[in-house]
Amino acid sequence: MNALLTDLYQLTMAAGYWCAGKSGEIATFELFIRRLPPNRNFIVAAGLQQAVDFLLNVRFTEEEIRYLQGLQQFQRVEQGFFDALRDFRFTGDLFAVPEGTPLFPGEPILTLRAPLIEAQIPETFLLSTVGFQTLIATKAARMVEAAGGRAVVEFGTRRAHSPHAGLLAGRAAYVGGCIGTSNTLAGMQFEIPVFGTAAHSWVQSFSTEIEAFERLQQLLGPATTYLIDTYDTLEGARRAASLGKPLWGVRLDSGNLVELSRSVRAILDQAGLPDARIMATGDLNEYKILELAAAGAPIDAFGVGTELATSSDAPSHGAVYKLVEHISGTERRYTAKFSQDKSTLPGAKQVFRYAAHDVLARSSECFAPGCEALLRPVIIKGELVARVPKAVEARELARRSVASLPKKLRSLFECDPPYRIELSPELMHLMEEVRRVER
Amino acid sequence: MNALLTDLYQLTMAAGYWCAGKSGEIATFELFIRRLPPNRNFIVAAGLQQAVDFLLNVRFTEEEIRYLQGLQQFQRVEQGFFDALRDFRFTGDLFAVPEGTPLFPGEPILTLRAPLIEAQIPETFLLSTVGFQTLIATKAARMVEAAGGRAVVEFGTRRAHSPHAGLLAGRAAYVGGCIGTSNTLAGMQFEIPVFGTAAHSWVQSFSTEIEAFERLQQLLGPATTYLIDTYDTLEGARRAASLGKPLWGVRLDSGNLVELSRSVRAILDQAGLPDARIMATGDLNEYKILELAAAGAPIDAFGVGTELATSSDAPSHGAVYKLVEHISGTERRYTAKFSQDKSTLPGAKQVFRYAAHDVLARSSECFAPGCEALLRPVIIKGELVARVPKAVEARELARRSVASLPKKLRSLFECDPPYRIELSPELMHLMEEVRRVER
Repeated sequence: MNALLTDLYQLTMAAGYWCAGKSGEIATFELFIRRLPPNRNFIVAAGLQQAVDFLLNVRFTEEEIRYLQGLQQFQRVEQGFFDALRDFRFTGDLFAVPEGTPLFPGEPILTLRAPLIEAQIPETFLLSTVGFQTLIATKAARMVEAAGGRAVVEFGTRRAHSPHAGLLAGRAAYVGGCIGTSNTLAGMQFEIPVFGTAAHSWVQSFSTEIEAFERLQQLLGPATTYLIDTYDTLEGARRAASLGKPLWGVRLDSGNLVELSRSVRAILDQAGLPDARIMATGDLNEYKILELAAAGAPIDAFGVGTELATSSDAPSHGAVYKLVEHISGTERRYTAKFSQDKSTLPGAKQVFRYAAHDVLARSSECFAPGCEALLRPVIIKGELVARVPKAVEARELARRSVASLPKKLRSLFECDPPYRIELSPELMHLMEEVRRVER
Repeated sequence: MNALLTDLYQLTMAAGYWCAGKSGEIATFELFIRRLPPNRNFIVAAGLQQAVDFLLNVRFTEEEIRYLQGLQQFQRVEQGFFDALRDFRFTGDLFAVPEGTPLFPGEPILTLRAPLIEAQIPETFLLSTVGFQTLIATKAARMVEAAGGRAVVEFGTRRAHSPHAGLLAGRAAYVGGCIGTSNTLAGMQFEIPVFGTAAHSWVQSFSTEIEAFERLQQLLGPATTYLIDTYDTLEGARRAASLGKPLWGVRLDSGNLVELSRSVRAILDQAGLPDARIMATGDLNEYKILELAAAGAPIDAFGVGTELATSSDAPSHGAVYKLVEHISGTERRYTAKFSQDKSTLPGAKQVFRYAAHDVLARSSECFAPGCEALLRPVIIKGELVARVPKAVEARELARRSVASLPKKLRSLFECDPPYRIELSPELMHLMEEVRRVER
């Protein structure tokens, strides 16, 4: 794992801490979402597996160290710092909510407690992988909700922000409730179901549409899904129907999906293929899915690409990683930021979840009866202490947890009032104390 | 390079072509943008280096082949296909416009001509890496235009769609005109300048703001950039100014940037630091940069993160990869798609660029005097035949080419009429012919 896949200032600050004799001071950072994007009422935490992989395996190569030594910004840095990078390991603690957990603004997705340098360098990677996967899992949960029981499949790698983003989008979409992805590597690496149909180029590469369909049926048998809009959709539906069984169904990729799905349904039914399914694709999002469902369009499955893999209505959600505690020698300081628009709460926290509200408390507080503590130890002193659940387990947790949220929160639109989050008296007290000292 | 980082249907279609005895047929695909996103008048092509790396190095591992053999969708596929995957190499041709070239809708960024299977499997990877980098280079060019000569630096990895997206965003933003990136690995891998300042956590980790500033100055000398808004921005500016030289300047990350930059400028000037610079960050985009510049805010450099690395106003631009020619035995067929909203032009193409318009022509047409043919051979029969320019060269080409576009095209808003693109008479003729045959 490339330690250099980080912002330069993480490395200059690390050098600065080392030079200032502060590299052994213990810092606690929390990673959370400051505000929900428009129309969201919760997020679905995802990306823990990649965060853990990074922390357990992050290393500096000799080439990377030489590169840093050649940079202008490191010319005043003592040799000892580069030696320290050579031996760099994450020796700290990671606490995190299980992947698939619904969360709200200000609630930590993860908490890192480590020597300053070790907590600083991973910031960029953690924000990016956890922030992105949480964004996509959240978007997927919205689409699945809109589909009301119909299947949603993730098809977005081609429009994702790099092939690796596509890989992780496939994983996160599955965690968020999709039945699978078209990203084959995601299927292999994360043990999730993979799906595919055929492209227009398949149809075009044969002299006739019917030959293309026949060959597809020979190849895929009961998994055959004909793409029927290359030339004329209804004619394509009639050709597909003429081949009879075996088939899974047909795919519509353009045109008026309500009208076309009805006409195609009729063609399939008249051909004695009532079990043949209709999949719709083509720039779908949760609102279009909701419309199609509301219009009673006879669509059995939705394939969603661009809008899911880029979360296109909200392609970011401002995940942040903030210092909340800092131990220097015998002194423990709680830190917060009180500047305009960007305030943060001091101290390591725990999230206690009750039936219909959460309490954000200090990490040292005890369980009250009837609630669950969401943040759990994952890495302690650099060692993995808990099994990281697989994608399929995270998906099952998300399914159960999202279903148990108050129904109005699962709306595609903002609900008012939002989910109730209280601050514990101890946390309120700490906040006031820190604010007083800062002043 | 993982061949499985693709949509499953590319692999099932490949198997289908193999089983149908079509794997040796030669297909030509073009990768292009169908429509420009809102407010864009051109795109800046980027991502060629990663496309070439993929085509030269794509392989199937034994583990990947075993995985495919276990999938339901491959149960009817003959063993010979998997043997073919074991020996899979790209043996075809790649033509591409140089990275940094401004392009318009419908104009190929690249053209792939190869045996069907070899042209199909790379589709997803190529669309993703070229589509994404083109998106970001285009967005960067807009920000650089808005900044009107002030520096723009890419700071977005933390909000990018995965750490690898951040790596490529750093590269693409540089191609599009940024002076560099904070992504350190991008700096090393692509030989581009890296920049960084310090975070709020740096300031917070010291007992006092002034101590944090002193330590930073000792570390970075003339590269020192103080982040001054952790507690009180103007007080922070006074503390930074009190330390005198050496410094690069200060960074503002919140609040009213017009007012604050003026007050901070006055503080620095009064302290005898007229050369100290002011950098602004904090959810900036091209419109905010334009506003700040128009208001005459004394800001010397802009650090842009989220909005650049995610192209947040247009997080995708519908890059497509379409079959345009297909040779089966002695028969050459030109393919196009005439379905609603998604029509394409048949035949391999060339883009001829004149002073103020382009001609989209057939690839076999000859140069006319006074124009440039944009698509050039890069890989022929699987071998690299041209040096792929480095990021710094692509950036220089983008700078020159964008500057030579008609000025109204460089507006941040849609210009009407758009850039003029003519179809050559030969291409028009081919189109009519194909349409007649389809009917």
